[in-house]
Formats: sequence, C-alpha cells, structure tokens
Amino acid sequence: MIRMPDVITKKKNGKKLTNEEIDFVVHGYVAGEIPDYQMSAFMMAVCFCGMNKAEVSHLTKAMAASGDQVDLRSIPGFKADKHSTGGVGDKTTLIVAPLVASLGVKVAKMSGRGLGHTGGTIDKLESIPGFSTALTTDRFMEQVRQIGIAIAGQTGNLVPADKKMYALRDVTSTVDSIPLIASSIMSKKLAAGSNGIVLDVKCGSGAFMKDKKDAKELARVMVDIGKAAGRKVSALVTDMDVPLGYAVGNSLEVLEAIETLSGRGPADLRKLCLELAAHMLALAGKGSVDACRKLATTALDDGTALTTFGKLIAAQGGDPSAVSDTKKLIVAKYSHELISDVSGYVSRMDTEQVGIAASLLGAGRMTKEDVIDLGAGLVLRKKTGDRVEKGETLAVLYASEEGERMAAALEGLRKAYHFSEKAPKKRDLIIDSVQ
Amino acid sequence: MIRMPDVITKKKNGKKLTNEEIDFVVHGYVAGEIPDYQMSAFMMAVCFCGMNKAEVSHLTKAMAASGDQVDLRSIPGFKADKHSTGGVGDKTTLIVAPLVASLGVKVAKMSGRGLGHTGGTIDKLESIPGFSTALTTDRFMEQVRQIGIAIAGQTGNLVPADKKMYALRDVTSTVDSIPLIASSIMSKKLAAGSNGIVLDVKCGSGAFMKDKKDAKELARVMVDIGKAAGRKVSALVTDMDVPLGYAVGNSLEVLEAIETLSGRGPADLRKLCLELAAHMLALAGKGSVDACRKLATTALDDGTALTTFGKLIAAQGGDPSAVSDTKKLIVAKYSHELISDVSGYVSRMDTEQVGIAASLLGAGRMTKEDVIDLGAGLVLRKKTGDRVEKGETLAVLYASEEGERMAAALEGLRKAYHFSEKAPKKRDLIIDSVQ
Repeated sequence: MIRMPDVITKKKNGKKLTNEEIDFVVHGYVAGEIPDYQMSAFMMAVCFCGMNKAEVSHLTKAMAASGDQVDLRSIPGFKADKHSTGGVGDKTTLIVAPLVASLGVKVAKMSGRGLGHTGGTIDKLESIPGFSTALTTDRFMEQVRQIGIAIAGQTGNLVPADKKMYALRDVTSTVDSIPLIASSIMSKKLAAGSNGIVLDVKCGSGAFMKDKKDAKELARVMVDIGKAAGRKVSALVTDMDVPLGYAVGNSLEVLEAIETLSGRGPADLRKLCLELAAHMLALAGKGSVDACRKLATTALDDGTALTTFGKLIAAQGGDPSAVSDTKKLIVAKYSHELISDVSGYVSRMDTEQVGIAASLLGAGRMTKEDVIDLGAGLVLRKKTGDRVEKGETLAVLYASEEGERMAAALEGLRKAYHFSEKAPKKRDLIIDSVQ
Repeated sequence: MIRMPDVITKKKNGKKLTNEEIDFVVHGYVAGEIPDYQMSAFMMAVCFCGMNKAEVSHLTKAMAASGDQVDLRSIPGFKADKHSTGGVGDKTTLIVAPLVASLGVKVAKMSGRGLGHTGGTIDKLESIPGFSTALTTDRFMEQVRQIGIAIAGQTGNLVPADKKMYALRDVTSTVDSIPLIASSIMSKKLAAGSNGIVLDVKCGSGAFMKDKKDAKELARVMVDIGKAAGRKVSALVTDMDVPLGYAVGNSLEVLEAIETLSGRGPADLRKLCLELAAHMLALAGKGSVDACRKLATTALDDGTALTTFGKLIAAQGGDPSAVSDTKKLIVAKYSHELISDVSGYVSRMDTEQVGIAASLLGAGRMTKEDVIDLGAGLVLRKKTGDRVEKGETLAVLYASEEGERMAAALEGLRKAYHFSEKAPKKRDLIIDSVQ
C-alpha cells in the first residue's frame, strides 16, 4: 500500500517516483484523500529535487486524466493549438489562430480568462461588440468543422488536478518549479485535445522566467512531455524584456491585432506571429518552417487571415464590420499622455511595471471577482531602443475614470522607462527554438 | 506586513529569517492563522535549507513562549534537568535523577508518556505500586523543596507550538531536520524551567540519528540554543547500536534501575548514568566533571542514591519497600526463553527490532490510546560482543498473554541477533561530548 508520507520522503531524498506513486498522489489529492498539508510538503520537495522526464510526463498525463478531456477526433484534419507563458502586450493568439486556420489547419481553442495585467484571450475577444465565447461543445465542434476555427471559454471540468494544485502552489511558494510549471501547462494542453502544440516560452523582465537558461529548460521539458503523450510539439523561447507590440489592454490589443492581420502592425508582433504560425503549420505537415513562414506571410499580407478573423467574429455573434470599422470597438472615455521630461534613448523598460500600470487603469484582473474594463489600457509610443526628445509623448493611457488610479498609472509607467545617451544594444526577439 | 508565502519563499531561497518573521510563523501557526499547508511547506523548506544559530535559537524561544512555562525560581538552589533523544532500554532518568538529587542538586522533572517501544519515564514509575505522577504544581514545587526531587507528568499547556508542529511534521516527512528536532526538544526543556540541562544524543541502529556526525551536530545546535537562552547546557553523544542494559519494558527497567542504584547493574548502564550525573553536577558547580564523576560513583555505591529513590517513591504515594523487595513490582504472567540455535559471537543487534519485539509484548504504545502492559517486556541475556553456545538462552520474554504476539516477538527478536565466528570490535559507549 502506498502511503503519502513515504512518497514525500522518497522525493525529498531525491529518488525517482514510480507511475503508481504519481497516480496515487494525483488521484488522492483530487479525491480529497490527501490533505493540502501533505501535498504542499510534497510539492516543496519537488521544488528542491525536481523530477526526471519519465516522472514529469506521467504526472502530466495523470493530471490531464483527472477530469474531462476534449475529444476532437470527430473533426477531420490536423488540429493545432498554441500556448504562451504570458507577457505584457501578448495578443498573438488573436492573430495566429485565424492566420493558421486560413491556411487549412484547424484551430479548436479553449482559452481561460486567468489573472493578470490584462485579461486573457477570451476577455480580449469579448471587447468586440456581440462576441460570445460561451459555446456549447456541440456548437464549438460544429463551428471548427465549418469554418476551421473556434475560440471558446473553458467549459466542463477540465484538469481539476491542476486547478487544485495551482491554488495550493500559489499560497505555499511552490510556483517556481519547472516540473510543476510544465505539468500545469501541458496537462491543460493535453486535455484540450489538439494534435499539435506550439509553445511560446517568454523570458525577460516582463515574464515569469527571467533567465534564458531556465526558459529553455522549461521549453525542453514541455516539448518532451507533449511528445511522450503522442502529440507533435515545438517551442520558441522569445524575448519579453519589452512589451510585445505597443498596445496593452483588451480592446486596444484587438485593434493592434486587426492592424497586424491587415499586413501592418508593429514589427515585433508581426515577426513573432509569423514564427508561431510557421511552427504550427510545420507541425501540421504544411512543409518546412521556412516554407510555412512564407505561406503565413502571404496570408497575412493578402487579407486571407483577416477574412478568417471576420468569419470567426461572425460565427460567434460578433459584428464582423469591426474588422474594417475599428471605431466599433470600445475605447475608454478618458485619455492622458505621458510626456517625456528627458531626451535620450529608451535604454530599457521594467516590463512588469508597464503591465501593472495597465492593470491600474482597469485592464487587468487581480482577483477572480474583479470586473475588467475592456476599453482601458495604454498604448506605448516609445519602447526600448527608441530615440525620445524632451516633451515627446511616451505613451497614451486610457481609463473610464479620472483620478487616483490614472495618476498612479502615469507615475508607475514613467518609472518603467529608463534612458541613456547611447542607443542600447538590440535584443533578439526569437531567442531559441526547441523541437 | 509579514506574509507567510514571502517567509516560505525567503527560507526556500536559503535566506536568514528575522526574529519578527520567526515570531510571525510560530504565533500565527499556534493561533490557527497560518494553515497547516503553509506550515508544512515552510518546514519542508527548512529541511532543505536549514537555519543558522540565531534563527534556531529564536525559533526555540518563540516555541517555548507559546504556552505555559514552569517557573522554578521559588525553589532555592540549582535545578538540573536531563533529556535523552530516546533509545531502547534507556532507563537512565530513573537512576540519574535520584543520584543527582542525593548530591544536593534539585531535580524538578516534568516527563511525557510519549509513543515508543516502551513507555516514558512516567509509565515506568507507575509500574511501582501506588506511585502517582499526577501532581499539582504546588505539590510538585513543595516536594522539590522538601526532598530535592519530583517527577511528574506534564500538566498545563506546555509548548503548544511543539505539539502542533510535531503532529504536522510526523505526517509530512519533515521530521529529520536538525533545526526542527533541536527546537522541538529544547523548547520543552526551556519551558520546563531548569537552570542546567544535560542532553544525551543517541546514535546508532536503535536511535533516530544513525550517524555520528549528525548526532554531534544535533548536540551542538541544542547546546547553543540552551546557552543563547541563558541556561547551562552540555551534551553527550552516546552509542545506541545495542540496547542500554539488558531490560526493555517498564517494570523490568525499574528492576534494573534499582539494581544499578544499589551499586550493581549492567556496566554500560552504570557508566552512562555516572557520566550524565557527572555532567549535571558539574553544571551545578559541584566541581569538574572528573570530580563530579567520583562524587556520583560514591553516591551510587554507598546507597545514598537508592535512599533518595526510596524517598521519591514514598513522597509520590508509592511503596518504598519495593526498592528492597523487588517482588512487589508487577511482572507479566507468562515468560518464554529465546534459545540460540547457533554458536558464535553476537556480532551486532538490530536494536530497533528489539524495541519492536518489546512493544509487541505490550510494553509500548503505538497510538496515544494504547494501554501499556507495565509488566511486559524482555530481558536480554546476551548482547553484542557476548559469546553464545547453541542451546543457550539469548533472552527472556514476558507478556500477560500467550499467543500470536508472543510468537511474533520471539521471531522478531531472533532476527535482531546477528552472529559471527570472531568477536566484533568493541564500540565506545560515550562517543563524544559537547559543552
């Protein structure tokens, strides 16, 4: 008979756990037979002693199997998914999903709302008038079959093991463990049912992973987990030392996504979207990554991807004319410009602080109960590397109310900018890739 | 404001905690404001990252102050206490306490029942007909003033922090951490109020600490804690690779204690008792350890110590004639001899297995609710180093019932003996001392 204290001791002593022991932990915890105090001690031991490839793969499978799993087999063709570990201004899903779908790869995406500096993909889409992310499973499946894409809020009891474990990790300082992070992300991706998964592991001042080496290791572990579960997976390690694009905030990001889907948009955002799409297409067998990058570039520049985005909006009850007439998107009533009081180059940005400023304006959710102001946020005019003259506008901030929070956001955003006399060294956006 | 997740993170990152942070943890946990799942994660982090001298001293003081503390200041003279980390056949308190008291050092001892292979000191004393360990605080203090010694069961709410933390450690695999062990032991010793404390840290197959280096480190940490709290403290590291003396079981151990107090008794038990008493007397200012060892030897050999034991028994309602007429002690009805089926030297003993055999006979308590059979146990005839001929008696086992458990104890005890053709190397009883 397996006993939890023995499993904790074994991991604490740096030993490898068997599949049976891992199943015992996951099933017992979800069933309420293993109390929180044993699980937190166990996860702390994992933080110190890690898990090998076999252990973390089995842990992820056991977590994925702890609740409902989406079965996409009735949808013909290759189904591709993507996941970003999160960063400031990351609206890539809004662009990459229709882009990939426009090239014949199915995107059946379940997204969360989550906590953060801005809302999740679901919140961003809901800033389009009429857009609904509450689809029944049948309608979700049918829509993917018909137009090749659907993006819905998570329904059902998906990966309850992760929900329970994550809530506990959050209050017991056991978040920063690569096997625990990797199994948390990948259990949800496995349960979501796609054949291919492209991971975007962020790294830098605006990301959870500050260090390239850790980011690459996380990417490696997640790719291995996916492969062990029979999925096609690849990962990019990308820079999050500066916000992605210029817009941070839900409807502001949709606007920027539409710009990008129209063949314009910020260079960094466009580049990352093309790279993610190329990897998703390559996993789907559409050719080499290089060939797929070319396919994706054409689809972005000739309007094919934007057309698919319009179809997605129409299918989910939104007003597709918002794609061409972006005035239909909600933008908050009040705006303030942040004016530079120095001249020089933006040498670096505290990217997390940019996110916090957006959140102060109402763009984010700090507790599950918070209501997001979908029109609030900020649009940067200057980012790291840009030349600024005194009196120029650094950013424009949007909120539904004037007052203390706007003042705090302006103050916080000012502090996020650092200046130098010389232009800083350019950083690579795409740092690494893991197959 | 201090937040528990931040304290856990700090310790997890190997940082030193402040006194305020340690107070926050101890007070918050005892008050029920910090949940078990955070405390277990914290203690697991301590298992990996340890604590320095200042941290463990403050932790111990905070734990000691979490409940009632015994105030012995109204009793004139030096009050000495001892503590053993526990081993099989350890009845030293029964001998050392009256021995030290007979030489004018006060012994005001609170003992626990505890769990283990045999009962605690309290259970052993209760095998003397009439002996009561349930004393009111007033009577306890008065008895120490009058005859220089009292041994009572713990009353009041002593060190609730340790009770709660120990119960949690026991089920979360966080027992084997030197700072947690040291603070658990020393918080109780500090709360018990004596001026001087001698610690006996056991080491070997019958002890929690299997390794000399760990045992010495535990001794060092505990001595430092005591000194930081203004107490006089010294520690011995002693061998527990073989049971101490020959008797294991409550009344059987009292019999052996009386033998030893009569100037006879097993050589190892006598030697350790003299050493512990010498250190207690030295802390009390009775001279050098060597001089005190001589004082103690005389008091053991001339009957002074035995007389004090008789006074202790009489004062606590027991029949003092038991000291000379040991037939008055309870001994279990049934006995069985364990006969050797080989000839040779006893090369080593699995000492923990000897304890488990005694417990099977009824001498121990595996859960708090178990009732101890005070007359049950075993008396070894042969120990490590002894020559044995086939057919000779290795040990005699005592129980109140014949049957399965007696059979299992005989079988278990047989397996505890290991034989060789040559005599094994002699081991030192007193391995080290820490001042």
